[in-house]
Amino acid sequence: VDPTQRPLYYADYLKLDTLLDAQRLRSAQRGETVHDEMLFVIVHQAYELWFKQILWELDEVMAVFRRERVDEAEMGRVVALLHRVTEIQKLLIQQVSVLETMTPLDFLDFRDDLVPASGFQSAQFRLVENKLGVRPTDRLRLAGASYSARLDAPDRAMVEQAEAEPSLHDLVEAWLERTPFLDLGGFDFWAEYQGAVKAMLEHDRQLVEENPNLTAAERAEQLRGFEQTFAQYEAVFDREKHEALMAAGERRLSHRAFQAALFINLYRDEPALHEPYRVLTLLMDIDEGFTAWRHRHAQMAMRMIGRRVGTGGSAGAAYLTRSAERSRVFTDLFNLATFLIPRSARPELPPDVAQTMRFRFEE
Amino acid sequence: VDPTQRPLYYADYLKLDTLLDAQRLRSAQRGETVHDEMLFVIVHQAYELWFKQILWELDEVMAVFRRERVDEAEMGRVVALLHRVTEIQKLLIQQVSVLETMTPLDFLDFRDDLVPASGFQSAQFRLVENKLGVRPTDRLRLAGASYSARLDAPDRAMVEQAEAEPSLHDLVEAWLERTPFLDLGGFDFWAEYQGAVKAMLEHDRQLVEENPNLTAAERAEQLRGFEQTFAQYEAVFDREKHEALMAAGERRLSHRAFQAALFINLYRDEPALHEPYRVLTLLMDIDEGFTAWRHRHAQMAMRMIGRRVGTGGSAGAAYLTRSAERSRVFTDLFNLATFLIPRSARPELPPDVAQTMRFRFEE
Amino acid sequence: VDPTQRPLYYADYLKLDTLLDAQRLRSAQRGETVHDEMLFVIVHQAYELWFKQILWELDEVMAVFRRERVDEAEMGRVVALLHRVTEIQKLLIQQVSVLETMTPLDFLDFRDDLVPASGFQSAQFRLVENKLGVRPTDRLRLAGASYSARLDAPDRAMVEQAEAEPSLHDLVEAWLERTPFLDLGGFDFWAEYQGAVKAMLEHDRQLVEENPNLTAAERAEQLRGFEQTFAQYEAVFDREKHEALMAAGERRLSHRAFQAALFINLYRDEPALHEPYRVLTLLMDIDEGFTAWRHRHAQMAMRMIGRRVGTGGSAGAAYLTRSAERSRVFTDLFNLATFLIPRSARPELPPDVAQTMRFRFEE
Amino acid sequence: VDPTQRPLYYADYLKLDTLLDAQRLRSAQRGETVHDEMLFVIVHQAYELWFKQILWELDEVMAVFRRERVDEAEMGRVVALLHRVTEIQKLLIQQVSVLETMTPLDFLDFRDDLVPASGFQSAQFRLVENKLGVRPTDRLRLAGASYSARLDAPDRAMVEQAEAEPSLHDLVEAWLERTPFLDLGGFDFWAEYQGAVKAMLEHDRQLVEENPNLTAAERAEQLRGFEQTFAQYEAVFDREKHEALMAAGERRLSHRAFQAALFINLYRDEPALHEPYRVLTLLMDIDEGFTAWRHRHAQMAMRMIGRRVGTGGSAGAAYLTRSAERSRVFTDLFNLATFLIPRSARPELPPDVAQTMRFRFEE
Repeated sequence: VDPTQRPLYYADYLKLDTLLDAQRLRSAQRGETVHDEMLFVIVHQAYELWFKQILWELDEVMAVFRRERVDEAEMGRVVALLHRVTEIQKLLIQQVSVLETMTPLDFLDFRDDLVPASGFQSAQFRLVENKLGVRPTDRLRLAGASYSARLDAPDRAMVEQAEAEPSLHDLVEAWLERTPFLDLGGFDFWAEYQGAVKAMLEHDRQLVEENPNLTAAERAEQLRGFEQTFAQYEAVFDREKHEALMAAGERRLSHRAFQAALFINLYRDEPALHEPYRVLTLLMDIDEGFTAWRHRHAQMAMRMIGRRVGTGGSAGAAYLTRSAERSRVFTDLFNLATFLIPRSARPELPPDVAQTMRFRFEE
Repeated sequence: VDPTQRPLYYADYLKLDTLLDAQRLRSAQRGETVHDEMLFVIVHQAYELWFKQILWELDEVMAVFRRERVDEAEMGRVVALLHRVTEIQKLLIQQVSVLETMTPLDFLDFRDDLVPASGFQSAQFRLVENKLGVRPTDRLRLAGASYSARLDAPDRAMVEQAEAEPSLHDLVEAWLERTPFLDLGGFDFWAEYQGAVKAMLEHDRQLVEENPNLTAAERAEQLRGFEQTFAQYEAVFDREKHEALMAAGERRLSHRAFQAALFINLYRDEPALHEPYRVLTLLMDIDEGFTAWRHRHAQMAMRMIGRRVGTGGSAGAAYLTRSAERSRVFTDLFNLATFLIPRSARPELPPDVAQTMRFRFEE
Repeated sequence: VDPTQRPLYYADYLKLDTLLDAQRLRSAQRGETVHDEMLFVIVHQAYELWFKQILWELDEVMAVFRRERVDEAEMGRVVALLHRVTEIQKLLIQQVSVLETMTPLDFLDFRDDLVPASGFQSAQFRLVENKLGVRPTDRLRLAGASYSARLDAPDRAMVEQAEAEPSLHDLVEAWLERTPFLDLGGFDFWAEYQGAVKAMLEHDRQLVEENPNLTAAERAEQLRGFEQTFAQYEAVFDREKHEALMAAGERRLSHRAFQAALFINLYRDEPALHEPYRVLTLLMDIDEGFTAWRHRHAQMAMRMIGRRVGTGGSAGAAYLTRSAERSRVFTDLFNLATFLIPRSARPELPPDVAQTMRFRFEE
Repeated sequence: VDPTQRPLYYADYLKLDTLLDAQRLRSAQRGETVHDEMLFVIVHQAYELWFKQILWELDEVMAVFRRERVDEAEMGRVVALLHRVTEIQKLLIQQVSVLETMTPLDFLDFRDDLVPASGFQSAQFRLVENKLGVRPTDRLRLAGASYSARLDAPDRAMVEQAEAEPSLHDLVEAWLERTPFLDLGGFDFWAEYQGAVKAMLEHDRQLVEENPNLTAAERAEQLRGFEQTFAQYEAVFDREKHEALMAAGERRLSHRAFQAALFINLYRDEPALHEPYRVLTLLMDIDEGFTAWRHRHAQMAMRMIGRRVGTGGSAGAAYLTRSAERSRVFTDLFNLATFLIPRSARPELPPDVAQTMRFRFEE
């Protein structure tokens, strides 16, 4: 601190004169201030502040993953920043409850003042989506137009640039593909995993075939169930089938990245996988956080405007519900759960492989 | 307090010996206690305790509405009890976060022990749904069978009886139909409301027709918009059209109950409508609470089991998502927002009608 | 909507260019951006936005209570606005969890940049406190100076003016004193209440005196307990004793306002008391919300800076803890619980009094 | 799954017949069921279920720390279980909001039925406290008696045994003392840290002494400030002074454990310290969670019973508030923040020491 300077004031530091003068009620401008419009403005401004913060965190996390080699000493920080995003998301959801204290009748008192502005014009939120990895093909058309059509030119350019650059999803995929563990020290995880799955399923099948209490029909049905389960696994075992699923839009992670993510989930107790496992978990938390927020938002819109069209000409509440279902980014991490096997069936890591995942001072 | 009795102990009052002895881990029974199974048991037991409490509240509220005439002095209590249900719902949702601290890999360690039990066998939750007013036709088939097929006989009977009796939805509908305000003192609310809507729409249409800045195409499109809006209102104005929508499953409240609910929303500032308005709001809150819980539950299941089938043979996460969308009961109260008009367009209540909605001591 | 104007953009409406340009990191200004300073700025800006909203609501509520006669049709609205404040308070508390994602070590990277600014310089929060009714005498000295000494001159003037004007506490007190119910229709509530209390205590005392199972010592002790209980009630019955407690700082509401609040709590089931009862409850909720926030804030500060002094030279965490205990405003409403009596002992309202608390259409 | 057995039912698994039959209302027993007593019972039963779960987790965590050598592969699990406790604590706090939907007047309808039972008789909660490390000397007397006096004999024995055994605090302290890092590879952390602190303080002091803008009085005051700061650090540098503080009750962790905790906080970015750092953070979170819950509980009690004595003869709300302040266990971890130094002043780890904190595959 330079003691010759005039002291720093809280209000100056936070630029409160600007911040607290940025609430301009349209109803006031036409001479009939509607009390509840202030809440509407402030809620949305608070959302935008938090979107800025989320972008700030995502940029930092993406910078780490963009490096050719992720320094492990940065992984604790990546986990901390992603965790911060999830805490912010809880706020976003809580803010819906505050906005819901405005009733539909109160909203009608100034709703016409807002036309045709719309929350769909939040460039920052579109940026968040694109940086996470929402793709143009995941988007619903909005009143027949692209989601970015309603933005002004500079915002549209910014949002579309983010669409063109590698997303967090892409960067995480590349990081997973680089994992050294899949073929470390002669341990072929993929072959071992397939063997374990087959043995597990075969054992279960035998139980069914030898069970004297089943009728022929029951036995047949249970065996059909095994065929289906096995077919699901087959699609994971085989790179070509996986890529066919990718082409069909049912998988997004590359086959190798998918394998790495499965490995991390199965062996997450190894010290070297603690942080990678947390990263994958937090990415799902973030997906879940935005899905939950979109659902709450859709419900709130439903209550506020019923089946009217939104102020921006959107399909309103129905649009929001559908888009909540389509904007999930890390779907394959959720899919992974389908292919986990119990610890009891899990192939054991050879000691030399396990050793590389621990710290030296243990010796 | 009878001072001759032995003193009451906290543990006896709460029957803690029984309560805290009711956690029987299946994994322990086969000799390999899985640590996380305790969480699984306790979370579900806590859910059942809260379901019991919700039923306790619903029964009390339904008893009030079942009377031929609802005593106003009981309305404060009804509001308090419905509000309590919403506070319990927040717990239900929060409990999902606790269950999510169990990972898919941990769950696999004891998942097979649970087959074929399933949360779909919670008779109490089915009772809650049926008492609120979920109808058999709202139900998805579960693995080809009725939602109640998996319950044991006494539970099934209990649940189906609740289905047959008047639900909270039915009771609220009847209460709305009995409202004295719709034709009190010669004030014909329905005619006045229609007039107000028509005047409002006509004024807006004129603006469009006279706007010199619109191209012919733009004007035509905006006028088409008015036709659509007007058609929506027509379906509300006209009892037969309303009943056609009811037959098509798009409305559930009778025409008169719908009118009463609209009246309460529009004139909710009148003292006599404070409590009725709160009741309607809380019914939506409760619907929203369960929808939010179902969504969180579906997301959690997705994370926990991926696309496997559920332990009870259900379609798992996908089933939960679809059912979340179908189990809303008070949809018409949400629909109401579509037909509200701004206070500035609202017909004024004649003084003698307004007077009946206030207290005597005001004079 | 005037169709000749250029369309309203979301970003313009919310003044996002200004809002999102108001984050100036001190660490960036000295050339070494500290990532976490952004969170620090945004959290505090979000707080200030919400404080503005709380002030907006308090001003509206106070305007209603400032009228000579509160229109009942406005009570629903007062309840809604106070409820909104409590929903905002939940956000304030939740925001602490977001700030806690910054660790003490991260904070140290830019803490010196902030000296001597301090959250104690939030003029808006001081305004909130003063409008609610925190008095100069409730304030702790801050490093030997008045809480307002650290504000700049215009802020100090604003805050001190609010201190001089009637607070929400004062306005509610006056409103309670004006209640018509305390001596309506010849029903002397205060006399009836005293009679009921005395009968209740006398009955309990008899039980003790006649209980053959008590030893002489036990009986004596229980009877001493009755004396104490009775002495507490005496201090309520008697206006002079009440005023002595006021002078000693143990009561704040006038004797008549205290009686009215007790009446409202005891007969809150009467329709005319629904809203007044909710108002009293919400005032306690608001007190509780700020107390909870102060506690969370104190804990967070403890974690962040330990026993260092705060950036503004305050005593840091310890100061915050002590001030949390002293800033409660509606303490007497909490005290009321001490003097409630069970419904079974409550004097019955004469029918003509009860009648005035109901609606005409009931006849 | 043995297909010969009868299928497992959800209701049997959860022992719902027992669980849902364990709510016995005292008011019902005297023939006048008070509706709200059910809520009172269920809230407390839910608390006890969750206390059982917390004990289950604490026992597991303590078992890990009780081993002579903590296997790093178990640290991820310890972190997960402690995190689970914090999620459960959020439920405990949320449950207070549910209980608060019962009003004081409603409580009075059955309060006398409960005498002399009291929440202070929750043996499980006392166990939680003792296992965490609340000591007999931290306890307030309850109506002149030990906190355990009101428990029945078996509960008292159980609670007192836990008091006698090593608590989680003790186990963590021993684990910290065993840390290999404090003198690994010739790096003397403690000497380096002291040097860094002294250099930092000396530099700051010079700035003050050479600042031409300070008056003599200001300079003297600021220099006095440095003396105080330095004295605080001295008490940390010196083992004997630290032990004097321990004797005075101002420190609880041994000097070596305190050093280790400081080391972990300062170098937490090193991979080998990620999990230890999280453990320390979560221990503070748990402390904070119980403090927050106690505060909420105290506020609720204040609202519910005012200044009456509690049903168990306790001093009621006042007791709860005071005890919230005294039951913190990991105070020294909070104190640590006082002695952190910025990363810029932190001694650099020699490469060979840093190397032991990373994984082999990095080479």
